[in-house]
Amino acid sequence: MKELIIGGARSGKSALAEQFAQESGLEVVYLATATAEDKEMAERIRLHQERRAENWSLVEEPFHLAEALRANADDDRVLLIDCLTLWTTNLLLNEDPGLFQKERDALLACLPELPGRQIFVSNEVGMGIVPLGELNRRFQDEAGWLNQAMAVRCDRVILTVAGLPHYLKGAST
Amino acid sequence: MKELIIGGARSGKSALAEQFAQESGLEVVYLATATAEDKEMAERIRLHQERRAENWSLVEEPFHLAEALRANADDDRVLLIDCLTLWTTNLLLNEDPGLFQKERDALLACLPELPGRQIFVSNEVGMGIVPLGELNRRFQDEAGWLNQAMAVRCDRVILTVAGLPHYLKGAST
Amino acid sequence: MKELIIGGARSGKSALAEQFAQESGLEVVYLATATAEDKEMAERIRLHQERRAENWSLVEEPFHLAEALRANADDDRVLLIDCLTLWTTNLLLNEDPGLFQKERDALLACLPELPGRQIFVSNEVGMGIVPLGELNRRFQDEAGWLNQAMAVRCDRVILTVAGLPHYLKGAST
Repeated sequence: MKELIIGGARSGKSALAEQFAQESGLEVVYLATATAEDKEMAERIRLHQERRAENWSLVEEPFHLAEALRANADDDRVLLIDCLTLWTTNLLLNEDPGLFQKERDALLACLPELPGRQIFVSNEVGMGIVPLGELNRRFQDEAGWLNQAMAVRCDRVILTVAGLPHYLKGAST
Repeated sequence: MKELIIGGARSGKSALAEQFAQESGLEVVYLATATAEDKEMAERIRLHQERRAENWSLVEEPFHLAEALRANADDDRVLLIDCLTLWTTNLLLNEDPGLFQKERDALLACLPELPGRQIFVSNEVGMGIVPLGELNRRFQDEAGWLNQAMAVRCDRVILTVAGLPHYLKGAST
Repeated sequence: MKELIIGGARSGKSALAEQFAQESGLEVVYLATATAEDKEMAERIRLHQERRAENWSLVEEPFHLAEALRANADDDRVLLIDCLTLWTTNLLLNEDPGLFQKERDALLACLPELPGRQIFVSNEVGMGIVPLGELNRRFQDEAGWLNQAMAVRCDRVILTVAGLPHYLKGAST
C-alpha cells in the first residue's frame, strides 16, 4: 500500500505518518530527504529521531530517492519518506539542472514495483500568494505537480490540518 | 448550474474544470482572463489550449467579465472561466482605481440571470503568511472576499488538493 | 464546549464564529487580541464591531489571554476569541523573548477549567511557500503548533474555505 500525507508547515503530517508506521507493527525504515548541513534542519532531524522508537532505522538520501526506495522496500517493511517537498528543493537547487526531472521520473516509474508499504510525506505550498522570484514559482509549480502525480499513484491520500487528518482518497481504516 | 472550483497553485483545479466541461456534452466556451503579455503566462495559455478539445472556443477577457458572461452564456453552453484570481489581479493593477469594485459588482449582479452552465476557477491565496506590501494584502483580501461571495451564489463549490476534489457545497454527482 | 475555527485570510472564519455565538442565545463576550495601534487593524476592528449585535461586550487583550479567559468565562456566556494568530504575533514581537512560551503554556493549562463555551478563531498560515526570515519561520512554526495543541483540546474543529465550513473534528450540529 502507498499512502501520501500532505499538509502545511506544522500541520502534524510527519507525526501522523510516524503514527501509521508505528501502528503497522512492521519494521520501519525512516527515509529522510533532509541533509544535516543546515543547523535549523539538523535540529528538526534530532527532534524527529527523538520521537522515533529505537527499533526504527534511518536512511538519509537527499537526491536519489528511487534508488533508495528500491534498495529498502520489502514485504515486511514500512518505508516512511519525509519529505518529498524538501527532496524537490534539494534537486531544484542542485548544480545539474536536469537532475530534478530525471529523479522525479525515476520516482514515479519505480512506484508500481515496490513491495511492502510506503508512506510519503509532502507539503502543500500553493495556497498562499504566488511568490516573487522565478525559482520560488518553479518550486511551487513542481511541488504541486508532484503532489498531483503522487496522489494518482497512491491508494490513500490525506490532508492534515492542525494535526487532524482529512481523507481525500481512500477510506479511514 | 454555477460551480466554483477553488484550489492552490498547481492543485489541479483547471484540469478538473476542463473535465467537467468535457463531460457535460455541451458546447464549451473557454473564457480566459489571462493576457498574453507575460511570457510565462503565454506559455500557460498554450498548455491550456493543447489540453482542450478542438471543438472548444476561446474568448479572452482580462477585465469586463460580466459583459463577456452575458454575451456568451446560453442554455446549451458551458462557460469555463479561468480564473477569477487572475482577473482580480488584472483589475487591481489597472490604472482606474475604481475598476475592480465596479467589475466585481457587475459580476455578482449578472450571475442570477445567466442561462446555461458556468464553471468558475479560482485560487485559494490566504493560507500562507500574510504578505508584505499594501497591494499584496489588498489582493489577498479581495481574492478571499470574492471567493466567499461567489461560493454563496454557486450551487456547487469544490476545493482541489493534489488533483483530488473535496466537495465543500453541493453533492458529488 | 470549546471550538476552534481555522481558516485562511478572508475565509469567513470570524463571521462563522460570530454566527455560532449569536445562535447560542447566550451572552457574548468578544475577546479581541488586536491592538488598535495599527490603522489598518483599527479599521478591521471597527468592521467587526459594526457586525456585532449591541448586546455583545468587548474585551481587548493582546497578551494575557489566559488571564482574560479566566476572568470572563462563565456558564451562561460564550467567549469569542479573535484571533489566536494575531495574539501569537503580538507575543513573538514583544520585547520579552520568553513571553510567548509563558502565555501559550498558560492558555493551554487554563482550558480544562473554563466554564461555559469558548470559540477560538485562528489562521492557517502554513500552506504557502516557507517564508524568508527567521522571525517569519518562527511565527509559521508557532502558529501551526498552537493550532495543533488547540485542536487536541477542543471538542469541535472547523476549517473554513470561501466562507464554507468543513468539519475536521466533531459533528455538524
